[in-house]
Amino acid sequence: MSRSYDQMCPIAQTLDLVGERWTFLILRDLLVFEKTKFSELQESLPGIPARILSERLKKLQANGLVEREVYSQHPLRAGYRPTEKGLSLKPLLGALAAWGAEHCLSPEERERALQHVPAELRPFR
Amino acid sequence: MSRSYDQMCPIAQTLDLVGERWTFLILRDLLVFEKTKFSELQESLPGIPARILSERLKKLQANGLVEREVYSQHPLRAGYRPTEKGLSLKPLLGALAAWGAEHCLSPEERERALQHVPAELRPFR
Repeated sequence: MSRSYDQMCPIAQTLDLVGERWTFLILRDLLVFEKTKFSELQESLPGIPARILSERLKKLQANGLVEREVYSQHPLRAGYRPTEKGLSLKPLLGALAAWGAEHCLSPEERERALQHVPAELRPFR
Repeated sequence: MSRSYDQMCPIAQTLDLVGERWTFLILRDLLVFEKTKFSELQESLPGIPARILSERLKKLQANGLVEREVYSQHPLRAGYRPTEKGLSLKPLLGALAAWGAEHCLSPEERERALQHVPAELRPFR
């Protein structure tokens, strides 16, 4: 499922960890919107198959970008939180947002999108 | 083949244009290493199927990020060049490179990778 580009280039290395379909949007929800529950992530990502969301979260955990925290045993409830290493991806999410805001959104759409984006994620003006 | 995330979020909009497998590496080769020929791109991207490379280039053209230039009719030879809009993706490639250099490469690998990277793509130190 998860194929590596197998290149020493740092761009390829980054994409090996976070470049798969949906992963940047999962990171956006965890890092920027501070969602923690599987069900919140599903709700925020219409169309994502549960199996894919689960696979992506496991890979993010395996690579030390996200931690899973069990906060109740009966019933079993767990949450996901970015690690320090995961949080270091914020500038990259900011760069993706900045380009999209400038090149893909109309001024009105940009204005509306901005209302949902915390100040820290704004090179995106 | 190319599915949209169908979200107004500027991160999702960016990924709809350039988030598919291989596309960021194709852009790296066109924007940073200034490769222009299909055969040069193939050589630089071991494992990419010709059909995928061709599809990705067509999508980049359709979205105004890359231009195709015919420079000989007999035999037919064409090259690919980033447009102004395409060139505006450089900071995003820089952010991908910076994160990968810091988190995925050893100091020696970083040193070696740096030798191949033009100064303009270096927040990546």
